[in-house]
Formats: sequence, structure tokens, C-alpha cells
Amino acid sequence: MKDVSANADAKRLAGEAAAELVKSGMVVGLGTGSTVAWTIKRLGEKIKEEGLDFWGIPTSFQAENLAIASGIKLTTLNSHPVLDLAIDGADQVDHNLYVIKGGGAAHTREKVVAGSARRFVIVADESKYVPKLTWPVPVEVLPFAFRLVERRLTELGGKPVLRLGKMKDGPVITDNGNFVMDADFGTIEDPKGLAAKISPIPGVVEHGIFDNLDELYLARAGGVEIIRRRRG
Amino acid sequence: MKDVSANADAKRLAGEAAAELVKSGMVVGLGTGSTVAWTIKRLGEKIKEEGLDFWGIPTSFQAENLAIASGIKLTTLNSHPVLDLAIDGADQVDHNLYVIKGGGAAHTREKVVAGSARRFVIVADESKYVPKLTWPVPVEVLPFAFRLVERRLTELGGKPVLRLGKMKDGPVITDNGNFVMDADFGTIEDPKGLAAKISPIPGVVEHGIFDNLDELYLARAGGVEIIRRRRG
Repeated sequence: MKDVSANADAKRLAGEAAAELVKSGMVVGLGTGSTVAWTIKRLGEKIKEEGLDFWGIPTSFQAENLAIASGIKLTTLNSHPVLDLAIDGADQVDHNLYVIKGGGAAHTREKVVAGSARRFVIVADESKYVPKLTWPVPVEVLPFAFRLVERRLTELGGKPVLRLGKMKDGPVITDNGNFVMDADFGTIEDPKGLAAKISPIPGVVEHGIFDNLDELYLARAGGVEIIRRRRG
Repeated sequence: MKDVSANADAKRLAGEAAAELVKSGMVVGLGTGSTVAWTIKRLGEKIKEEGLDFWGIPTSFQAENLAIASGIKLTTLNSHPVLDLAIDGADQVDHNLYVIKGGGAAHTREKVVAGSARRFVIVADESKYVPKLTWPVPVEVLPFAFRLVERRLTELGGKPVLRLGKMKDGPVITDNGNFVMDADFGTIEDPKGLAAKISPIPGVVEHGIFDNLDELYLARAGGVEIIRRRRG
């Protein structure tokens, strides 16, 4: 119980620290997950307390509802195609700042929002930060293509499993109406190379490897550490 | 009028020739378009006349209906994930057998079917066969991502245009519920390289460049010429 509580505190610390990046006039991507939820809540407080005035673009239905409840004005990628900033959570981040996302099946919209932003920041606690990625890669697939994608992911050395629903029979359906496969590749030595092999598989909508993270707000025991990308 | 008629005859010739590839016991992908429609009709005749017995997997609602009307038994990619053969049409085929498809907005399912087949055959008339691809590349995109995809395609040197409906206000919606952008890249010198740059753009579901064509059934004035892929 103590560990869970310490972890929850760390998440809150990192989430709230990232809220300080948001300035009035910005358009900001608001991510999905338990850590970035603290960012959104803190932004709601800053709107009330400091008159912070910005527009948010949520990455999911969950983020949208939390943003509305927090009093954040929302806009769309169509009307604001270039974001100043996107803040999101992660399932795993490696020491080169390659990221795996998609545990919540929202990684497709998260990737579009992150790709639309000038600056992409992730908030996470220490448990997510690893030398090399080992998390199974979530892959959103068109329902009629899942057998082909399964075969190709296996040929690439992965062990793909169709993600099944809880509180819903059969497969998880994403906000875009698709399936998700979780492909275990063991330790991923070359995330960039693997990403380049998964993207072109017919029927793959989006995989959960992100290569464009600029900054990681990492909650450690001693406080929030900011880690910036060094690779090109 | 004479040209149109000659072109229609050539399409029929190539389409019907490809029907001879189908043998009893096979699972066959049935493509979309005016040339492959002749293949499907001829297969229906062969079922009645010769007792040909195979299973078809259509690439679109249009192909599905024509196959049903032709008396072809249908199955699914889920129950038969490996096809013996896929036969489809094309918008353009270059001399290295790179292909552009997607004029009918069905290229995503077409690519999944072609990718699931041991042998991928295209039927086309001479007007489609060119030294280098120049056709605008159809790109199926998630609706909320089209502004980002538009920007990235422009950065790659393309001129993307959102495909608008006729008999429907606003954009064309694909069978998968998405938008289509047609990106004009002028003469495409390196289709493989371009394909590798479009696939990873966040929000791209599938682009219309196909790199896995095995054989082209080409209707020329003198008859049907079969062109096989030479590159690796």
C-alpha cells in the first residue's frame, strides 16, 4: 500500500510540474492517463486562480471529459492544426527518449496530437523510465486486417495478442472503431527500426512507438527531473 | 467514342484472361474496378460452365455485390487469412511494377487483401502502364488527422487535396469511415522511398502505393501481355 501511495504522489508531482509549461494564448494537447490527469486538474486550478487563458485539444474521450470538468476551453485539430505544446503520459520511456504508449488504446489520437505539436512533453514516474523498452507494443489495426497484421508482427519477431475487452465481450474497440494487438518483442534494441517495419504493414492504423519526445518530466524520489532529448 | 470502345474491349480481354488463373480449391481476392469486374463476371461463367469451385474474398462493397451476383461463394480474411491469389485493377503501374491504387477509395482493403495473398496479379489496359508513376497518391486518413497529414505530405513535396464527394456534400468517406487525400507528387522517381515516408505519418491509415505486385496482365492492341516482376 505504501508503494502505491508513493507512486501516486510521484505521478502528481510530475503532472503538476508540467502544467507550468502552459502559458496564456497557447494551444495545448491534453493527454490520457493517470499522471497527465494531474496536469489537467492543475491547469483547471490555474485558470481559476491565475486567469490562465489557453485552448486545449484532448487526445481521447477521457481527456476531453476531464478537461471540460476542469473548466478548460477546448478546440480541434482542424481549426488549430499546429499546437504549441502537447503533454501526455507513457507506458514506458527509454534512455534515448523513445516511448511506448497505448495501454489505454488511445495512442493513435495521442500520436496525431503529439505530431501536431511544436513541443512534446511526457510526464511519468520513475517506474516508467527504463534503459531499453520491453513493453508490448500496442498496434491499432483495422478489424478485417488483424490476421494479416498478426502474421507480419510474428514474422518481425513479436508475439502479438488481440487485446480483449473487460466489461465488453470480444476485442477492445478503440475510439476509432478498430482493434488493438499487443505485440511482445522482448527487449527492443532498435525502436526506430522496429517502428519503420510496423508502420507499412497493411491494416496497421498506428503503433505505439513514439520517436518525437522532446522532454520527459520524470518524478523521482528527490523531485521532478527534466530530461531532454539528445539524439537528432 | 471509338477510343473508349477500344479501351473497354482491352479491359475485358485482360480481365477475362486473369480469370484463367483461378483453380478449384483456391481462396481468391476479388478486386474493385472496371477491369477486374470482367474477371469476376468470367469467374461466374466458369462456375456455371465448368464447375469451377473456389472461395472469393472481396476488397470492397462493390466487389462483394458483383461476386454475389456472379454466384461466387464468399469467405473472410479472418477464416482464410492466407489467400492463394489476389486479382485487382490499378490506376497506374510503372515499369518496375510499382502500382498506384485508390481512385475508388478502396485501396486500404485492397492492400490488406493483396498483402494476404501468395500471388498478387493486376489486370489493366495499356493506358495504365507508364515508365514512371505520375498519378496523385491516394492516402486514407483518420478524419481528425487530415490537417497534420496535409502538412506532412506538403513537406514531402506533394500537393495534397481532400477528396470531395459527388452525390454527397463534403469529403468522401471510405468504407472504413475515413477521409481520402490525393497527393500529387509529379513524377515519382522513387516509389519505395516515398511509400516509406508516407506510412509513418500519424493519422495515415494506408497510402495507395503498392510494392508487392507479382504479375501484370496488360491488355495491348495485339493481345494480353503478361509482365512479371524482376526486382527483388
